[in-house]
Amino acid sequence: MQRYFIEKEQLSDQTATLFGDDAKHIQKVMRMGQGDRLICADNEGSAYLCEIRSITPDQIKAEILKKFENNTELPIHVTIVQGLPKGDKLELIVQKGTECGAKAFIPFKAERSISKWADNKIEKKLARLKKIAKEAAEQSHRLNIPDISEPVSIAQLIKISENYHQKIVAYEETAKAGEQHALPELFKKMRAQEKLLVVIGPEGGLSEQEINELTKAGFICCGLGRRILRTETAPLYVLSAASYHFELLEWGE
Amino acid sequence: MQRYFIEKEQLSDQTATLFGDDAKHIQKVMRMGQGDRLICADNEGSAYLCEIRSITPDQIKAEILKKFENNTELPIHVTIVQGLPKGDKLELIVQKGTECGAKAFIPFKAERSISKWADNKIEKKLARLKKIAKEAAEQSHRLNIPDISEPVSIAQLIKISENYHQKIVAYEETAKAGEQHALPELFKKMRAQEKLLVVIGPEGGLSEQEINELTKAGFICCGLGRRILRTETAPLYVLSAASYHFELLEWGE
Repeated sequence: MQRYFIEKEQLSDQTATLFGDDAKHIQKVMRMGQGDRLICADNEGSAYLCEIRSITPDQIKAEILKKFENNTELPIHVTIVQGLPKGDKLELIVQKGTECGAKAFIPFKAERSISKWADNKIEKKLARLKKIAKEAAEQSHRLNIPDISEPVSIAQLIKISENYHQKIVAYEETAKAGEQHALPELFKKMRAQEKLLVVIGPEGGLSEQEINELTKAGFICCGLGRRILRTETAPLYVLSAASYHFELLEWGE
Repeated sequence: MQRYFIEKEQLSDQTATLFGDDAKHIQKVMRMGQGDRLICADNEGSAYLCEIRSITPDQIKAEILKKFENNTELPIHVTIVQGLPKGDKLELIVQKGTECGAKAFIPFKAERSISKWADNKIEKKLARLKKIAKEAAEQSHRLNIPDISEPVSIAQLIKISENYHQKIVAYEETAKAGEQHALPELFKKMRAQEKLLVVIGPEGGLSEQEINELTKAGFICCGLGRRILRTETAPLYVLSAASYHFELLEWGE
């Protein structure tokens, strides 16, 4: 069933009201009418089954039939810090990472990032990524849309990392050296709702200097299996591993 | 270091000989010359560190310095049966799935596959996918290039499945119902080098009829976490989970 994220103010006890792009999408793309059902999620952890009662081109009113009880969020909060990759790879990462349960994305101006965001383009780029995250969250039945922040420097990143329970950096050299136990050992220590920060390098990897600064700040180097993953594949590996560990293996339902 | 897959016949005890596209790539793209080093892998489980000794436009001779000992293949063999997806999604699946360790890919003519391969296009499409798999295997330091077969019908698929130790089908309805323990329970039963067949539906999912036929043939329905994954994300989830389980959690190095 089609799912829409709406503001809390658009919900009353019995009614959900949809405007703008959502109202257009419901009518033009989904071709829904009175009596059709959809899901409204408030981006604060609740989702409702609704049935359309009235339609005008600009506004749709739907009756709330019931609140959904099943939680579709990852048990731990995973924030992906992504060394700015080339081209439109960040769009792929945000789309797939949202499906896989990321809580937030922080683009990172890494030493070897070839891609730079011009100051006057930041707003537009963020708006596009946020739209991709919203659509992927709707499609994958998330209760929350991941946050996407402006690109940060390494100094800002280390400051931000103070708010996290655990912080790791995916490091190719670690993978080559065969250190593969760090990630499961860290997962085993984590409890529900704790926050994990994951740093992924850009195409050229992180520099030795960056690795030194991050490990000095308490980041743990983790291998992600025996193979060398591309920058856009690494975040999906970590998120899939987190889902497997916390949703399938350890806690199940 | 750059890695090239070559035929076993191109290797002698002390020398690797590279021709054609590889010889061109080494000279034109990598701009390597005498004394530069590269890795040659024979697609049968061995890889060698080599140093270039002589270069002509058509042929490069490199001395074998040593054989690599570290295995970069997944401990279990995972074959991805992919319901034919729209557009060029299969290319993304083959590229990323190869990085994540898939042993083989089998395109599947599912009931709800919108994409069809015309008979006269099959050869060309397979050649392109095989090239993508080879490049991804080189980039991710695999010892084997995954096989890619022609699209199969459900009858062919069930016949093929007889050769596998375990067979699963990712089923969205299972995910919704909250059955999330099947995959780890199955992984716990598997031993090194055993073969797992994984069926993923196309965009519209598998039909009830297909699910019935597969479960009757011994396939187990598995949930892949709490969220609804797109068809191209599901195989990466299964492969990442397999790597996490067998390479990081259970066996490590």
